[in-house]
Amino acid sequence: MKKRSLAEIARAVDGEIQGDPDKLIQGAAPFEEASEEEITFAASPKFIKQIDRSRAGAVIVPSGVPKMAVNLVVVKNPLVAFAKILELLYPSVPGKTGIHSSASVGENFTHGSSVSIGPSVVIADNVTIGERVVLHPGVVIGCDVTMGDDVVIYPNVTILERCRIGSRVIIHAGSVIGSDGFGFAPDGERWVKIPHKGIVRIDDDVEIGAGNTIDRGTLGQTWIQRGVKTDNLVHIAHNVTIGENSAFAAQAGVAGSTTLGRHTVLAGQAGVGGHLILEDFVTVGPQAGVGRDISEGMIVSGTPEMPHKLWLRVQRTIPQLPELKKRIAELEKKLKNIEKK
Amino acid sequence: MKKRSLAEIARAVDGEIQGDPDKLIQGAAPFEEASEEEITFAASPKFIKQIDRSRAGAVIVPSGVPKMAVNLVVVKNPLVAFAKILELLYPSVPGKTGIHSSASVGENFTHGSSVSIGPSVVIADNVTIGERVVLHPGVVIGCDVTMGDDVVIYPNVTILERCRIGSRVIIHAGSVIGSDGFGFAPDGERWVKIPHKGIVRIDDDVEIGAGNTIDRGTLGQTWIQRGVKTDNLVHIAHNVTIGENSAFAAQAGVAGSTTLGRHTVLAGQAGVGGHLILEDFVTVGPQAGVGRDISEGMIVSGTPEMPHKLWLRVQRTIPQLPELKKRIAELEKKLKNIEKK
Amino acid sequence: MKKRSLAEIARAVDGEIQGDPDKLIQGAAPFEEASEEEITFAASPKFIKQIDRSRAGAVIVPSGVPKMAVNLVVVKNPLVAFAKILELLYPSVPGKTGIHSSASVGENFTHGSSVSIGPSVVIADNVTIGERVVLHPGVVIGCDVTMGDDVVIYPNVTILERCRIGSRVIIHAGSVIGSDGFGFAPDGERWVKIPHKGIVRIDDDVEIGAGNTIDRGTLGQTWIQRGVKTDNLVHIAHNVTIGENSAFAAQAGVAGSTTLGRHTVLAGQAGVGGHLILEDFVTVGPQAGVGRDISEGMIVSGTPEMPHKLWLRVQRTIPQLPELKKRIAELEKKLKNIEKK
Repeated sequence: MKKRSLAEIARAVDGEIQGDPDKLIQGAAPFEEASEEEITFAASPKFIKQIDRSRAGAVIVPSGVPKMAVNLVVVKNPLVAFAKILELLYPSVPGKTGIHSSASVGENFTHGSSVSIGPSVVIADNVTIGERVVLHPGVVIGCDVTMGDDVVIYPNVTILERCRIGSRVIIHAGSVIGSDGFGFAPDGERWVKIPHKGIVRIDDDVEIGAGNTIDRGTLGQTWIQRGVKTDNLVHIAHNVTIGENSAFAAQAGVAGSTTLGRHTVLAGQAGVGGHLILEDFVTVGPQAGVGRDISEGMIVSGTPEMPHKLWLRVQRTIPQLPELKKRIAELEKKLKNIEKK
Repeated sequence: MKKRSLAEIARAVDGEIQGDPDKLIQGAAPFEEASEEEITFAASPKFIKQIDRSRAGAVIVPSGVPKMAVNLVVVKNPLVAFAKILELLYPSVPGKTGIHSSASVGENFTHGSSVSIGPSVVIADNVTIGERVVLHPGVVIGCDVTMGDDVVIYPNVTILERCRIGSRVIIHAGSVIGSDGFGFAPDGERWVKIPHKGIVRIDDDVEIGAGNTIDRGTLGQTWIQRGVKTDNLVHIAHNVTIGENSAFAAQAGVAGSTTLGRHTVLAGQAGVGGHLILEDFVTVGPQAGVGRDISEGMIVSGTPEMPHKLWLRVQRTIPQLPELKKRIAELEKKLKNIEKK
Repeated sequence: MKKRSLAEIARAVDGEIQGDPDKLIQGAAPFEEASEEEITFAASPKFIKQIDRSRAGAVIVPSGVPKMAVNLVVVKNPLVAFAKILELLYPSVPGKTGIHSSASVGENFTHGSSVSIGPSVVIADNVTIGERVVLHPGVVIGCDVTMGDDVVIYPNVTILERCRIGSRVIIHAGSVIGSDGFGFAPDGERWVKIPHKGIVRIDDDVEIGAGNTIDRGTLGQTWIQRGVKTDNLVHIAHNVTIGENSAFAAQAGVAGSTTLGRHTVLAGQAGVGGHLILEDFVTVGPQAGVGRDISEGMIVSGTPEMPHKLWLRVQRTIPQLPELKKRIAELEKKLKNIEKK
């Protein structure tokens, strides 16, 4: 690894050095593990208080931290700066450009410059992709799919016909985009399949985790708006709309035709029912089950979902249930005694 | 898209026209979005009441709807008819038949006519598939697998050795059929693997969602009976039997050796424990956890599962717990005061 | 199938025969299904009591079972013995060794003897694998990955760059090892990606189920220690450590930077929050949600998690909530009446 001077690093993140600009840095580490040649960051009061005990070569801090013996890089947003520094210190190795000989490419394939199409990639007819797109090995792209620039699709991802992927989208390994929605018409005891003729539309700057399944619309589209990020094993059903900059933790799921506003946050294993509307800036707690529309800015938790502050009190009470039951029985007994008298 | 006359559409679904049989239709849409050239359907009272305000070119309705200015197609089951009309208006493009040159086919491969084996498909030895089977790119089929006719296997699906797939089965992308069950014998602190020598048997007319995992039996079989439909990311453990026409929503899971009757419905993220028996026509609510056998026709919800009607009342009470606790404390205080006197 | 004498079978599991050593066995079956030519086992008192009614050709039992007309094989651990006998009676068919012509192998590939690299496998540069490693079709291995001996990777698995896999590791179909962790720095309403530069390290004798997603460390490693077993659709986030011989049932998930001790057991659909410490020998019940550190040997259940014994009482009380609420109201009414007097 190439060493970088603190001056070079500070410049990359628009930071101000308090300490030695010539200090050489050769790695990054979490706050408690950083050694003398590594840079770390302190964003929370917990770590800011401990900076003077840190052995780190430098610490990225927000403004307002007093000068001390440790080298500091003062920035507006330490975690954002740390993210940039990680890429600087550990640059991604660019893959080979070109189309591997074992890839199978259909008719009318249109692509920008510097694309990288790996081994065993399969591209159907009439696919269009932009500049510098990377399709890792085993990726399958259906017919009439379009992608913007700087898209990275990891191995064994499937993107089915007609789906539209924006620019700077990342899709992690094994995910499926554009599977049929779960739509069946009951016909007596049997189920008749409702054909799924819509698409999935994924806008710019979206990152989809590994093992996700995102169904196409029955008609129209399932729409993942700009800047959405999903963790692993997330399920998004047909005709769902996810507003800009939403973030879904692992194993969360959203049922069909639900619309989530901007900056929705779903914690791990949360579930949102079908045909609902969650307004902007809603947060749903871990394992919560949402069965109703939710107003803007609400934080909800629990099953059934309720305001998070209420849930905090409810969840303290749940383990007391057997004791409360006893106390009710005790009250009943005493009251009976009183009534007798 | 080819336009279709209403007469042509009505004929396809065995419907009766009230209005203009020559009306040309060129698409389908949800009730509230349908334009003058599109057909839609109204099955629920909610939408039936609004038909006269619809701008749709035609509306599919059940019998008993009064004549009005809007073109109607009267059928027995509007949603089933709509499903058929979708396929009529948006016909699936048949894939290329034949075996792609980049597919790898083992010894003794037997197949019916008009099969379509995509690029990078891998078929092991002694595999038999029927007529018109479509294996999308990246599908891997283990040795001694058999499939019936008209099966569609989407990209990157894995079907492991000896599994038996019926006719008209659809398996969506990324699913795994026939992985080893989760069976280990405790040997002190260590786990000794129990070999899994059984199979998965999937009967006719089953549709498996994307990213499912269906384990083979330890011995014998894991059995998905006729007409079962699963949504995405569903887990089915070893030696489970799922009765005919059951439907599992996304992220549901069933533990080992459990038997589910006909027409079981599992809502999203529901879990069913191992070695249980659910009789026919059981419905399990979202995120419910089933730990006991369930009798025929029961609807259960909650964790632990309970009759759904009880759950509806329980879930209204849960958010009131802190208040109930206060009321108990208040009662205790008052009673103490009374006892003092 | 080759028949085996009971003597041969007993020798393989270090067991002692009570009965006919020349009895020929040609299959294994569960206790209640075993026929006269099949062997089964009885480990629990429930089955041991029924042995004399079994039609099985032989029954594997622990010591202490009295002699009877049925052939017995006495061993220390009947289930472990049964696992070995399954492999003896139904030996796995070894795959073809060698590198298939349709596999794509990068530069500096180092491998031991008798490896089996299937069709459409893709191996990037600088990969090292040991003896007898089996890479099933469609497996993708990133650059600089290392593996020990006797590893089996099932179809369509993705292992990304620099991950380190021990010996005798099994990874089932469709799993993803080494995807980026879900780490984003909030920058106003937007999310800035935190690059993930760490790895996944999987130690010896680990078995990973189908459709798992195991993220790499942000820095450092996500560490699956020796003997860990996971079921299907399990999610393990960045920088998690899972202690030796832990076992996770299907659809369980662990959030980032959490450390689980030796022999942790997570039941199905359980979730463990981030930045927690679970000490050795902790068991988490089905669908439980763990939000706190857990001490050694604890069994916890419920959401929020609580001691399992308490949960058993709580879960009996939850369905009684509406009734308890009524009883509180009744008490209040009566008390009011008393106070009036």
